[in-house]
Amino acid sequence: MNINLVTSNQGKVEELTAILRPFGHTVSQLPVKCPEIQAMTLEEVVDFGLTWLHGQKTPAPLIIDDAGVFVEKLQGFPGVYSRYVHDTIGPQGLLRQLEHIEDRQASFKCVLGLLLEDGTTHKFVGECKGRIIHEMRGDGGFGYDPIFIPDGFDRTFAELPPEEKNEISHRGRAMQNLLAFISEKGL
Amino acid sequence: MNINLVTSNQGKVEELTAILRPFGHTVSQLPVKCPEIQAMTLEEVVDFGLTWLHGQKTPAPLIIDDAGVFVEKLQGFPGVYSRYVHDTIGPQGLLRQLEHIEDRQASFKCVLGLLLEDGTTHKFVGECKGRIIHEMRGDGGFGYDPIFIPDGFDRTFAELPPEEKNEISHRGRAMQNLLAFISEKGL
Repeated sequence: MNINLVTSNQGKVEELTAILRPFGHTVSQLPVKCPEIQAMTLEEVVDFGLTWLHGQKTPAPLIIDDAGVFVEKLQGFPGVYSRYVHDTIGPQGLLRQLEHIEDRQASFKCVLGLLLEDGTTHKFVGECKGRIIHEMRGDGGFGYDPIFIPDGFDRTFAELPPEEKNEISHRGRAMQNLLAFISEKGL
Repeated sequence: MNINLVTSNQGKVEELTAILRPFGHTVSQLPVKCPEIQAMTLEEVVDFGLTWLHGQKTPAPLIIDDAGVFVEKLQGFPGVYSRYVHDTIGPQGLLRQLEHIEDRQASFKCVLGLLLEDGTTHKFVGECKGRIIHEMRGDGGFGYDPIFIPDGFDRTFAELPPEEKNEISHRGRAMQNLLAFISEKGL
């Protein structure tokens, strides 16, 4: 089926397309500015967005996607506001925040929200645990990818080939959950 | 008149009450959870909130208030997300971001949104320029008050007596604008 992806982030469109295409699904970018609320969890942001899009009669099936990196010793910062923090102090700012901190455990999280034509909404969560390193490495990906190494790897998200990243990434895992749901429902 | 203040922040209630009481107005705290959107400006957050509250038929006249501290050399960080940043990395985290930065100019901004019983909405802006110092000083105020010295002063917001702070603060100035409007309209 064709799914409308509500986002202004081209990187997300490319990642989702790469994951969905092998299963015969296509992705269209839907240029709707969906309000994102300030909240402590991605789930709240996605719930509010889906309700708003449904109220606006935005063409379904559609997906919204919210993601962030949550650093344990920083009480989850930058979390839900990862993009804003990226656009202001940048990955370097996050490194500065961690300069004197040894425990650098962090977790990338992604929540996909699906609104179907019958008005039902569904959420799919993906998580990828790892750690923040001390410098930026790699040219791939986007956002905080150059400073994050997933558990069990020695390369950053930005150093992994896209296929390899998509298999283990937060967004990849959320997409697997969404794909399983779509297949089960025969959509 | 009595104005409903939509907030969960007791510090804001106290500040507004102190400013409005001399003019014969009272403030009631309204425990409504108004969604705050993620945006680059306080004005957008307040606009969305007023529209939402009006749609919910929340009892007017009411005020919502959003404020933040915008650091020039950090592209405005923490800005609209000042509270979240405060609750995660704290004022110390902001100091860490500025460790090697000499130009520490910053600006506290406050936007008050007023919804009247006739459904009209009005915004009042207040700004207080100053600088971020290198350590925390003073026990008064809340948030980033202990690390901010307003231009023309040598004490932080947290070291100034409340009356003195209210006269020059971002919130105090926004309130003066709101008071002038109320008086002019004979409300």
